[in-house]
Amino acid sequence: MPGTDRSQMALPRFSGIPTFMRVPYCTSIDQLDIVLAGVPFDGGVTARPGARFGPREIRNMSSMTRAIHHVTRFNPFDVCRVGDIGDVPFTDLYHLERSHEDIRRFFEPVFAAGKIPLSAGGDHSITYPIFQAMAPKQPIGMVHIDAHTDTWDNFKGSKFTHGAPFRRAVEAGLLDPKRTIQIGIRGAQNSDEGWRYSLESGMRVVFIEEFEARGVGAIIDEARKVVGDGPTYLSLDVDGLDPVFTPGTGTPEIGGLTTRETLALLRGLDGLNWIGGDVVEVSPPYDPSGNTALVAATLMYEILCLLARRFE
Amino acid sequence: MPGTDRSQMALPRFSGIPTFMRVPYCTSIDQLDIVLAGVPFDGGVTARPGARFGPREIRNMSSMTRAIHHVTRFNPFDVCRVGDIGDVPFTDLYHLERSHEDIRRFFEPVFAAGKIPLSAGGDHSITYPIFQAMAPKQPIGMVHIDAHTDTWDNFKGSKFTHGAPFRRAVEAGLLDPKRTIQIGIRGAQNSDEGWRYSLESGMRVVFIEEFEARGVGAIIDEARKVVGDGPTYLSLDVDGLDPVFTPGTGTPEIGGLTTRETLALLRGLDGLNWIGGDVVEVSPPYDPSGNTALVAATLMYEILCLLARRFE
Amino acid sequence: MPGTDRSQMALPRFSGIPTFMRVPYCTSIDQLDIVLAGVPFDGGVTARPGARFGPREIRNMSSMTRAIHHVTRFNPFDVCRVGDIGDVPFTDLYHLERSHEDIRRFFEPVFAAGKIPLSAGGDHSITYPIFQAMAPKQPIGMVHIDAHTDTWDNFKGSKFTHGAPFRRAVEAGLLDPKRTIQIGIRGAQNSDEGWRYSLESGMRVVFIEEFEARGVGAIIDEARKVVGDGPTYLSLDVDGLDPVFTPGTGTPEIGGLTTRETLALLRGLDGLNWIGGDVVEVSPPYDPSGNTALVAATLMYEILCLLARRFE
Amino acid sequence: MPGTDRSQMALPRFSGIPTFMRVPYCTSIDQLDIVLAGVPFDGGVTARPGARFGPREIRNMSSMTRAIHHVTRFNPFDVCRVGDIGDVPFTDLYHLERSHEDIRRFFEPVFAAGKIPLSAGGDHSITYPIFQAMAPKQPIGMVHIDAHTDTWDNFKGSKFTHGAPFRRAVEAGLLDPKRTIQIGIRGAQNSDEGWRYSLESGMRVVFIEEFEARGVGAIIDEARKVVGDGPTYLSLDVDGLDPVFTPGTGTPEIGGLTTRETLALLRGLDGLNWIGGDVVEVSPPYDPSGNTALVAATLMYEILCLLARRFE
Amino acid sequence: MPGTDRSQMALPRFSGIPTFMRVPYCTSIDQLDIVLAGVPFDGGVTARPGARFGPREIRNMSSMTRAIHHVTRFNPFDVCRVGDIGDVPFTDLYHLERSHEDIRRFFEPVFAAGKIPLSAGGDHSITYPIFQAMAPKQPIGMVHIDAHTDTWDNFKGSKFTHGAPFRRAVEAGLLDPKRTIQIGIRGAQNSDEGWRYSLESGMRVVFIEEFEARGVGAIIDEARKVVGDGPTYLSLDVDGLDPVFTPGTGTPEIGGLTTRETLALLRGLDGLNWIGGDVVEVSPPYDPSGNTALVAATLMYEILCLLARRFE
Amino acid sequence: MPGTDRSQMALPRFSGIPTFMRVPYCTSIDQLDIVLAGVPFDGGVTARPGARFGPREIRNMSSMTRAIHHVTRFNPFDVCRVGDIGDVPFTDLYHLERSHEDIRRFFEPVFAAGKIPLSAGGDHSITYPIFQAMAPKQPIGMVHIDAHTDTWDNFKGSKFTHGAPFRRAVEAGLLDPKRTIQIGIRGAQNSDEGWRYSLESGMRVVFIEEFEARGVGAIIDEARKVVGDGPTYLSLDVDGLDPVFTPGTGTPEIGGLTTRETLALLRGLDGLNWIGGDVVEVSPPYDPSGNTALVAATLMYEILCLLARRFE
Repeated sequence: MPGTDRSQMALPRFSGIPTFMRVPYCTSIDQLDIVLAGVPFDGGVTARPGARFGPREIRNMSSMTRAIHHVTRFNPFDVCRVGDIGDVPFTDLYHLERSHEDIRRFFEPVFAAGKIPLSAGGDHSITYPIFQAMAPKQPIGMVHIDAHTDTWDNFKGSKFTHGAPFRRAVEAGLLDPKRTIQIGIRGAQNSDEGWRYSLESGMRVVFIEEFEARGVGAIIDEARKVVGDGPTYLSLDVDGLDPVFTPGTGTPEIGGLTTRETLALLRGLDGLNWIGGDVVEVSPPYDPSGNTALVAATLMYEILCLLARRFE
Repeated sequence: MPGTDRSQMALPRFSGIPTFMRVPYCTSIDQLDIVLAGVPFDGGVTARPGARFGPREIRNMSSMTRAIHHVTRFNPFDVCRVGDIGDVPFTDLYHLERSHEDIRRFFEPVFAAGKIPLSAGGDHSITYPIFQAMAPKQPIGMVHIDAHTDTWDNFKGSKFTHGAPFRRAVEAGLLDPKRTIQIGIRGAQNSDEGWRYSLESGMRVVFIEEFEARGVGAIIDEARKVVGDGPTYLSLDVDGLDPVFTPGTGTPEIGGLTTRETLALLRGLDGLNWIGGDVVEVSPPYDPSGNTALVAATLMYEILCLLARRFE
Repeated sequence: MPGTDRSQMALPRFSGIPTFMRVPYCTSIDQLDIVLAGVPFDGGVTARPGARFGPREIRNMSSMTRAIHHVTRFNPFDVCRVGDIGDVPFTDLYHLERSHEDIRRFFEPVFAAGKIPLSAGGDHSITYPIFQAMAPKQPIGMVHIDAHTDTWDNFKGSKFTHGAPFRRAVEAGLLDPKRTIQIGIRGAQNSDEGWRYSLESGMRVVFIEEFEARGVGAIIDEARKVVGDGPTYLSLDVDGLDPVFTPGTGTPEIGGLTTRETLALLRGLDGLNWIGGDVVEVSPPYDPSGNTALVAATLMYEILCLLARRFE
Repeated sequence: MPGTDRSQMALPRFSGIPTFMRVPYCTSIDQLDIVLAGVPFDGGVTARPGARFGPREIRNMSSMTRAIHHVTRFNPFDVCRVGDIGDVPFTDLYHLERSHEDIRRFFEPVFAAGKIPLSAGGDHSITYPIFQAMAPKQPIGMVHIDAHTDTWDNFKGSKFTHGAPFRRAVEAGLLDPKRTIQIGIRGAQNSDEGWRYSLESGMRVVFIEEFEARGVGAIIDEARKVVGDGPTYLSLDVDGLDPVFTPGTGTPEIGGLTTRETLALLRGLDGLNWIGGDVVEVSPPYDPSGNTALVAATLMYEILCLLARRFE
Repeated sequence: MPGTDRSQMALPRFSGIPTFMRVPYCTSIDQLDIVLAGVPFDGGVTARPGARFGPREIRNMSSMTRAIHHVTRFNPFDVCRVGDIGDVPFTDLYHLERSHEDIRRFFEPVFAAGKIPLSAGGDHSITYPIFQAMAPKQPIGMVHIDAHTDTWDNFKGSKFTHGAPFRRAVEAGLLDPKRTIQIGIRGAQNSDEGWRYSLESGMRVVFIEEFEARGVGAIIDEARKVVGDGPTYLSLDVDGLDPVFTPGTGTPEIGGLTTRETLALLRGLDGLNWIGGDVVEVSPPYDPSGNTALVAATLMYEILCLLARRFE
Repeated sequence: MPGTDRSQMALPRFSGIPTFMRVPYCTSIDQLDIVLAGVPFDGGVTARPGARFGPREIRNMSSMTRAIHHVTRFNPFDVCRVGDIGDVPFTDLYHLERSHEDIRRFFEPVFAAGKIPLSAGGDHSITYPIFQAMAPKQPIGMVHIDAHTDTWDNFKGSKFTHGAPFRRAVEAGLLDPKRTIQIGIRGAQNSDEGWRYSLESGMRVVFIEEFEARGVGAIIDEARKVVGDGPTYLSLDVDGLDPVFTPGTGTPEIGGLTTRETLALLRGLDGLNWIGGDVVEVSPPYDPSGNTALVAATLMYEILCLLARRFE
């Protein structure tokens, strides 16, 4: 089996049981190189819920994606084996930290087997237990696209909300702030503690104003320099984009990235030492046109192309 | 202040800052007889979230309600003082039991002062901490309109989900199952433990098929007989109605009550010894036409009429 | 030209420029027996606007209607000439009374030529200027289906809002209250003056509770007795139906008529001395599923069948 | 393997890759008793398209269904093996008859192996090729719930549209009109040929007015008498219900069945000699609240209960 | 009381009775520096209505805004007292000029007390009576962001529609056309009289093509030069933005400003002599995703930052 | 009759029976210079249907367009006679090629009479039969705005889907690939055959990345050079724009043209030798906000301005 079974992709796009990008559903990870998974959890949000339905709608809309990239002519399914392993089977839904344990346990064998995961959230709190599952020997680098730095501290009784994963990850020695770049940051706050934490810990914070002023090319250069050639994770919160592109999200902030900018940014990150990625914060109940899920599915495909390059 | 300030009610219905039924917003309960409150919490749901926005949308749509009942010509605002005391100010959102503590603490002074609360949820898990706040000397009676008995036990790590409040209330000696009637029950289940608990504990369970076969009049008689003249609470889950009337809810089950049946049922419960009530499980993100919130607001008005009768 | 050109009706239902029921668009009324017209006006509403788009959406959805009635096998287009004469061309939109003048002027030649109009609103305030245009020698009778009696007096500076047309019509000697029946009335009010006016003037007011208790057959008998064999107008406000059927309306009241009841009621009124009719208060911006327009279009067809019977 | 793998059903209802009712996805029918399948095809519609997305949304919403029936306590998954075999893999989409060939070929091995199919459409034209695949020795009986008799002839160039399947089936000797009952029929037509064909061929046509007048019990008796104990198919077009319950459909007709009536009707058909069934005409693009898919999924579960009874 | 009570802002964003940006609701303006108010009126529109619900939805969505600006770190609530004084209580809704009198009377005491108003519309016709209430000694300057110049004359019987406020304001000596700049103008017209009036009266009209060609920086320079250091009002019609950002508006014109351009433009106007502002033409019934209200609420916050700078 | 009857355009924009841009409905083309027509057909789509309702919604929304262009002050209705001739009256809907015959037959007299057609689709497959109706002596040139080259070959049984029209047109000698430019191309594909066909046949393919890098001015120059001064057709698929502007379409691809870019591009094509045009792929069921239809209607107006220039 040199590549992926593509029989589903040959169906009309309204057909079939929707897996991510219509790759095979796999109950075992053994035969896979890249593992697609869903994390249907929104117990960490601070405002609007709904991201628990994100994996389902991204899978649904991902039937619209296809194989050969129009810019590079690269086909990720030609070079590696990609499968959908389903969703984290939560045993605990009502205590944030215990739900995170479910996530951690689900991803541990994935990392232990050396597979590369690409996950669909779920709210952004899920990235911290994914990092825990990874348990890297050295803190990893990260390109983080988002409206928020997600380095806040306690909120309404928890330090593990979707506003906090990267503060926790730095504290736990999982993430190297000096090899972290946050892009698209914006929106008023009631406290500046998150912004300060990011800056003081050494993260490179690219507010949207800087992004716009310097242009996507300069920010790509900056990102490549920041993360270098060490192992790097890509975390994309769809609220990094302007809510006109991705209205279906929990904490929208106007004035964000366009899809063209986001696509250019991702493509500019080709060739880095990618070890995994996620697309989070898709909340289908707030997405009447379905465009948020379409954007998320297409960006997952773009990230898959990045991850698959190491198998060429 | 013999009655309720009605200046807001004289505005056009698209005007003004929306309190429940446009009663005054009150920071103190001292001058009130009946207390309207919101419990913006959906941390106990098992399927679709969104009920955290229920109080806000019910308030919003309740501007469409008015004062004089068209059947009875009763005006609740003439006989008692009604105010909106705002929402439970949650300090804990990420651990179900701790959130319930917030609810309990909010309602304790309401009951301690002898006020009658009428609450808007929020998911149905909120009724248990309201009962805890009430801390009745004797277990109370209840008329419970719902598609589900909400007497299930543990689910995904908690015994306090929105499927469990009345099992917990019986166990805690807060609710008298023999003075409890559950109306509108229906929908397949993966286990029958909830149905069995209700029946075995002595609750009167009126499945929708019995309701339809015998008619609303017979069920009213039954309900009056079950609860008798002791203190009784009215808990109305909007999923008791058919989802065509109330699509904006977390666990819809087709084949439910109509609005006309529900209105007739409520009006038939006039004169009982009411000590409070709630309308729960309105999830605005699933309510594109707004009808769920309109139904909930109108039913709150009908329940207010029931509660206000003791002040005539 | 013995009947109506039906070439449009032979197109697929998604085709063609939408006139009411796909009858010919006519710039002259001379060749017509029954005149279909739109009154795109919502300047008389008290709550939610949007009925100005009612005629357009009813026309649009009326492509779904067809010719032969499934109960009676009657085809109205076989016995008389039906045309769509377009919309009232308003010259005044910003002063309620002047807008009503536009309506009156538009319908005067219709009545003067002895044509029978069937109009689509617009809000219910439009019926009063239609009655003015009719200028009947004797006050007419009316079957009025609605949640509201529309016999209120002044509201926020005008006596001609959509809550007032039938009070004005009685005062002006256009409508005979003793030959008027109002069916479906319900919903709380801040004052009972409208209900009282209707009752004291001699109108027969059938609240929804009476309708339900006695059944549609009894109400049909009652209506036929009230209006007798004199000239009678049929005015149908879609908020007479439950908002679950017709959410797209300005002042929805839960607990109304079903479509089956409304269809039965209309069919029971066959053979009366009909002189015109209208379907009002369709507000498309509040109709995400389009069902309100579908209901309104189908009820227009049913009313057309009633009006056409005199040409058999 | 005595029953069905239910591990998916134990997940939270927003989790997992959606198969029908979360039964296992099966690439072989060998181990199954009842086969669930999708027919994502709307090339036979006459008005609004979109039913090609019906299987996908019914699968999606069917995660809300569960196992134990609340009236009978029957659990179909306890007595037989149920699997989802995916969708008809169309090779031809642009010529109606050739698409029907695809459907026929897909179902032939199902019937050949003696399995009982329960399909989700797709438009109603799909039932004819399913009958062709069945190729019964004797014409079969049918209970058909629909607003339309679907016994029309040619329309815009084809005799195989969704208005024609049962006329074709009678002509082909697949369906016995004398053992066919059509329930819920209504709505005006431009020609009465379909109604006449049904009546003249001997089908029992129950217009909605008769249904309402006589009540669901009498119609159940009638249906049981008409179909007798011979092999019988159940075909349910969601437009048989009132569009307020099932707005997401191609040719809605107001004034239809309620969900409670439909549920009662189906339950009254228990114990007949069922050989298969389908639920058709769900068009998700016209279903903003998702209720149509919820109704369809729940009715599929009810039909599954009927089909499974033979395995008790 | 040195600043604004922020207890509401500390609640979860789905909680509480929604005032603008969750500032206190004030029945008196005495303790305030900046007054937030709603003008729920759409009696001046020429096309789609609904802006009467603008204040309510902007308030609702403004719970998503927060205090500290991410670019400047400025917190307007630290330097001045901001309160929500509710909505204009209309006594006249059915005659455009009389409704404008209601608006004028509401704002007169605000200006008389030297307070700075920031209003949410309502259609754009409301700005003229606000200017009348201001009754400046000298004609004021204005930065006006809009797709339309709103300097048209009579339309369908009135000179006071939402297409006319600034022509009326110039004629009344309230607005200095030479100190007025209109930005974002575009869209075909049936007459060019409005464009001509603006140009001939001396207003600086920046069509969107000029805006795009020269860039936001150049237009900021131009605006600052045009209005100079005299008293200046900021009037922002959300249809100045592209309707993809603000679909919920009455007269959308494609090809408008982006949110990023609008934010940059507003921030570039810091330090001018601001005396008030408004955000108008939000029509919630046309805003299925809610993004229009989110944009409007966020832009109100940005304008608040401009207005508050004089209190530093 | 020197120009177009504009009486409809003087009505309020919510009034009247909607023709394209409110021009007169014409049953004959004799008096017209430019012919507006609808092609309500989506039988050629490969993914999401609904474009059969495109003409109706574009007509509906086109009431928002007006006469005088804001950049050029050109009024197309002053210089030529424009009429709406309704929709292609399909006699065949269920066999793609036969439906195309209907389209061809409808347009043949239009071209035979030397009229210039501007059509609203329908899916993109309609352009091929329009070209067949034109039957040009020489292959024509084309400016083609789209996300897809539409030069694919066979798909699921047909060579005439909406992915194939321009391959068929080149093969049939109707379209000159060397005088064809395709702008906005993007999105992954499962095969590269379409891209290759376009390039190998000599079409100028401008992927969106080139468009963005070089800017609209450069692409305009390129387009003018490619098509030269020979007869040229303009075909605009709304999926050429980013789906955030035009979500209501069958095969959306993120990262497309903005409305401002599209408007600039069209305006830059002024003065070419235009012989017709179309706007296709508007699918209203996927357009909850209506913006797609608004964009399409406005772009039709812009194209009308291009076409009308030859009559100056």
